[in-house]
Amino acid sequence: MIQNTGSLRRRYFDWAATAEPLLPAENAYNPLSFFGNPSSPHAEGRKAREALESARSRCAGVLGIPAENLYFTSGGSESNALIVHSLIRRCSKARVLYSAVEHPSVRENCLVLEKLGLETAPIPVGTDGRVSLPALEKLLGKYPDTRFAAIMAANNEIGSLMDMSALSKIIRGREGAPVHFHSDLVQAIGKVPVDVKGWDLDSASFSAHKIGGPRGIGFLYLRKTVDPLYTGGGQEKGIRPGTENTAGALAMADCLERRLEDLESSIGSARERFSCLIRGLRERERCVLIPGDREEDDPRFSPWILQVRFRDVPGEVMVRALDDSGIAVSTGSACSSSSPERPVLDAMGLDEGTRLEGIRISQGWTTGMEDIEALLKAVDKVLTFL
Amino acid sequence: MIQNTGSLRRRYFDWAATAEPLLPAENAYNPLSFFGNPSSPHAEGRKAREALESARSRCAGVLGIPAENLYFTSGGSESNALIVHSLIRRCSKARVLYSAVEHPSVRENCLVLEKLGLETAPIPVGTDGRVSLPALEKLLGKYPDTRFAAIMAANNEIGSLMDMSALSKIIRGREGAPVHFHSDLVQAIGKVPVDVKGWDLDSASFSAHKIGGPRGIGFLYLRKTVDPLYTGGGQEKGIRPGTENTAGALAMADCLERRLEDLESSIGSARERFSCLIRGLRERERCVLIPGDREEDDPRFSPWILQVRFRDVPGEVMVRALDDSGIAVSTGSACSSSSPERPVLDAMGLDEGTRLEGIRISQGWTTGMEDIEALLKAVDKVLTFL
Repeated sequence: MIQNTGSLRRRYFDWAATAEPLLPAENAYNPLSFFGNPSSPHAEGRKAREALESARSRCAGVLGIPAENLYFTSGGSESNALIVHSLIRRCSKARVLYSAVEHPSVRENCLVLEKLGLETAPIPVGTDGRVSLPALEKLLGKYPDTRFAAIMAANNEIGSLMDMSALSKIIRGREGAPVHFHSDLVQAIGKVPVDVKGWDLDSASFSAHKIGGPRGIGFLYLRKTVDPLYTGGGQEKGIRPGTENTAGALAMADCLERRLEDLESSIGSARERFSCLIRGLRERERCVLIPGDREEDDPRFSPWILQVRFRDVPGEVMVRALDDSGIAVSTGSACSSSSPERPVLDAMGLDEGTRLEGIRISQGWTTGMEDIEALLKAVDKVLTFL
Repeated sequence: MIQNTGSLRRRYFDWAATAEPLLPAENAYNPLSFFGNPSSPHAEGRKAREALESARSRCAGVLGIPAENLYFTSGGSESNALIVHSLIRRCSKARVLYSAVEHPSVRENCLVLEKLGLETAPIPVGTDGRVSLPALEKLLGKYPDTRFAAIMAANNEIGSLMDMSALSKIIRGREGAPVHFHSDLVQAIGKVPVDVKGWDLDSASFSAHKIGGPRGIGFLYLRKTVDPLYTGGGQEKGIRPGTENTAGALAMADCLERRLEDLESSIGSARERFSCLIRGLRERERCVLIPGDREEDDPRFSPWILQVRFRDVPGEVMVRALDDSGIAVSTGSACSSSSPERPVLDAMGLDEGTRLEGIRISQGWTTGMEDIEALLKAVDKVLTFL
């Protein structure tokens, strides 16, 4: 049952799970004007095709990549699954590396590959949740059969930012057969600077609903074509069958452009708010940041995601208590909410007590300083009872 | 380039490729009221979960199936691919039957299974494009290792309706290990009577955009759980990972209810319009219906889809000429528009000339008798030049 929260104003701090929708601009398209099937040969079909390709060009344009390398999918999870599963037919014998803090749609599909006979290995992260450069170098040396490495740019639970340029240099500098370098950019795009070309990525995953777009649309950047997850009507050059989601693609292009146009200033104000939040949380005796040495304005972390714990308060209890006070936060990622496991916190070497107490606070572009103040007040109120 | 058609009114006859959008009802939901991630534990998440589950119950309700057996996917193609690929792990050695007129998302994925070591066989259809009952009986006798049979209820190119009750009885009457009976209901739902329970189906695929809903949403009915296409965040009980498309699911429920409420009367008027069209086409000397013995009001065919050819006019030429006259029709299915092959017409035993000349005319609930008249007039005009 949804509680009637009466006049209590809700404060949403779970943007990493899904963003508040960016409402379409006033001059938004009328869906009736491009409702046709983009694969149909008539005027309605051609109009829809034109709309779809314009969406593709716009998405590619803001990312600085060729439009023909961008394949629309149903979202981030499918994009990650598509590239990981494509390895089954591409490399019957090979080693697959994935960072120990990857999203389940990377990590779990890599484990499926393992069952199918491929070798896998997680790339360790430091206590800050960032992929360790020496660890990657060591792994690549240990496993000359490595053909694939998946490293997300921004982690979804801790907010740790990977040093993508340095990681790329290590992967590209490895002698022997080339390694396919994939990055899940779902929590990075529209939130922190992203450089698909500069990072020399072979593939990357994107989702609309984390940047204010609708569900059911995302895309995969692919430098070279791969085997699809499944086959069908040949859409998206055979990489992703199913009638193309024209309206979704246009909405995604719209959100991407709007979020990237605004990126620098929105990062600046996100930092200010989180600095204030971190300062405030540090003043609360029972509060411990995760990791403990996260600074107020720490370049190692996304200014949109913060992991924190409150001593002797299980994360689930804290989430519920804050929710009753009008504050929406979460424990792990929403995608793993049905499981008590916290593989990301495990990978950082945190003990069980810490893992059970961790909660995630994630903000967005409509978050205001007054929301931060309300959150801190709610924390105080809640802690007096817990 | 999209031609400027000036004051020429467009007449859309490609509803089988995609339907004109059903605009949301006046009291439609505000997407901001359920934007949360349905897997999130807070009030926003619970509201989204409630909306998603209400959409599931409503879809299940109009189909007379339990809501817990309905899994939202990105659409019809993915639903078909999901069930076909699930056989890989379920039956390492088995025979897979599929009707010779299945959609590419069934047929082509069955051929993928074949490459992976399973046995497959197409179920022949008659010259009317309908699965032959004796042929199915014979195949089941010939292949006692059959574990799966896919038969669509309504074909997407010819409009042939399968005798689903009789086919089901044959499949269920077979002695030995049970056969999983799957049906692609994408062209049937909202167009002709559908009886998931009465046909004793093990699984069935549905898509929103063929009944006026948005792209990127559909569902799979599953009597028993199966292996997913890929894994990830555990959504849809692990069958279909990725943040749930709440708005899409609600829109689909809305369209499904509206189309089914109206079904009988809309079938009645569709029949009247197609009877008039077929009568008109028969009067045109160069016109040949496919199959040739299709009657004005023929219970063997969907009253929404008609295949026809014009002697000595390649289908592609006819489609373009009609398009220039304001009429949108198609050759094969939009999903195969990039390929000159016409496997459905092949399966009906049609010669190459016929195959090259076939075009599909498909109507919808906003089609009027005046559109039929305009179509016939355009045919006459076009044929004087061709």
